[in-house]
Order: sequence, then structure tokens, then C-alpha cells
Amino acid sequence: MCGMDLDFHKLGGLVTAVIQDHVSGRVLMVGFMNEEAFRKTVESGYATFFSRSRNKLWLKGETSGHRLVVKEISTDCDKDALLIRVEALGPGVCHEGYESCFFRRLENGEWRVNEKQAYDPNAVYGGRS
Amino acid sequence: MCGMDLDFHKLGGLVTAVIQDHVSGRVLMVGFMNEEAFRKTVESGYATFFSRSRNKLWLKGETSGHRLVVKEISTDCDKDALLIRVEALGPGVCHEGYESCFFRRLENGEWRVNEKQAYDPNAVYGGRS
Repeated sequence: MCGMDLDFHKLGGLVTAVIQDHVSGRVLMVGFMNEEAFRKTVESGYATFFSRSRNKLWLKGETSGHRLVVKEISTDCDKDALLIRVEALGPGVCHEGYESCFFRRLENGEWRVNEKQAYDPNAVYGGRS
Repeated sequence: MCGMDLDFHKLGGLVTAVIQDHVSGRVLMVGFMNEEAFRKTVESGYATFFSRSRNKLWLKGETSGHRLVVKEISTDCDKDALLIRVEALGPGVCHEGYESCFFRRLENGEWRVNEKQAYDPNAVYGGRS
């Protein structure tokens, strides 16, 4: 397969990966994948990203157990972005304790948290984020 | 507002913007916004991107009339990505004639187009993409 024709060069070796709950349709997070992360995602069936801050592959759920089980993968017209529909294991995808990383909404020019935490991140990550 | 605290530096002045239909929940496209594009999006109520290939602001629907009417804007934990729920004017968002840019699905190691075009892109864009 070898990256299956995705266009990794626009973002310096990465493509954008949008993670969406396959049942509710909620967008849970956005990450980036290099060719190896994409291959691992396809082969293992668990979403694997490339962490730009840690500069290495990152199996989502490595620490928390909150893995993302791949249900369907689509790419866009330019083949530089992925849409991955998943079953999210555990109560929430966000390391801050929310179901989705998109827990802040713009209201009158300010970002407001508009939902409750789904779990206590300190209990899961033990103080690490 | 001045970018409202978004983290534009990780992607060289840009944040990722995921565009989602506010009714169906379908992810329609992924684009990028610089601070000015984000400000114009908020002020005008129409999604405006920064085109990396043309190196300038790009009001989505400028040519086609297929504008994206902003219904809700969220940001993620890192504030380096946006989720914008929209009403998409016109039959499709993708310049290739599809409702969504994510019209190719991975099936047995190959990308397969799994839906019909929603309009004829030549009639709308006159041969330009």
C-alpha cells in the first residue's frame, strides 16, 4: 500500500486526520498522521497519530486505554486529509476529561466550555497530560 | 478579539478548520485559517480560509456561490483546531462535484468513490478547479 497515494508533502510529511464518532457523528479530535502512522492505523485497526510535540508515533489510548477503533476511513479530493469514523473506547477522547476535544464554543467573542467533563483526567493520566 | 487566543504557531500561522454540516453532521471538508481568515469568518458569518496553494484568503463559494454559512464555532483543547458547523449553500462543497470532499472510502486497500456527484463541476467552475 505504501501510503496509498496520500499527499503527505503539503504538511511536511503529515496529513490531517479528523476523528468522528461513527454513531453520533460528533467530531472528537483532530490529529496528524505520517505515512507510518497511517499504515499502523490501517493495519492495527486503532488510530495512531504522529505527535508533533513528542516527534514520534502515538497510539491514541496508549496511556489511558481510550483507544479509537477504526470503523471507516475516507480521504478528501486532494488526498491530504483523512476522515476516520471510530468507536471511541472509554468515556472521553480528550486528555482534559471531555468526550470530545472540541468542548469550547465561541459565544459573544469568547470561548466557553459548554459541557461537563466525562471523566477525571487526573485519575486516568495521573497528573500527566 | 485578535485571534481570540488560538494557537496559530504550530502550523506556521494556520489552524486546521473542520467543516461539518450542522444538520446531518457530515464532515464536508478540511481547510486552514490564518488569523485574518478566522476573523473574517467570525465577522462575516461565511467560512473564509487561507489557501496554501494560492497563498491568499479564500472566501469559500467566491466562484461557485456555494458558501458556508457559519452556525457554530468550537475549538479544541490545544486551541490549534476549529470545528465549524455550517449550512452549506448549494448542492455540494467539493470542487469535484460532490456533497463532501470526503467522497472516497478505503476498501480493501484502495480508495473507492462511494457516492454520486451532486452537481456538474464544469457547469459551475467552467473548467477551473
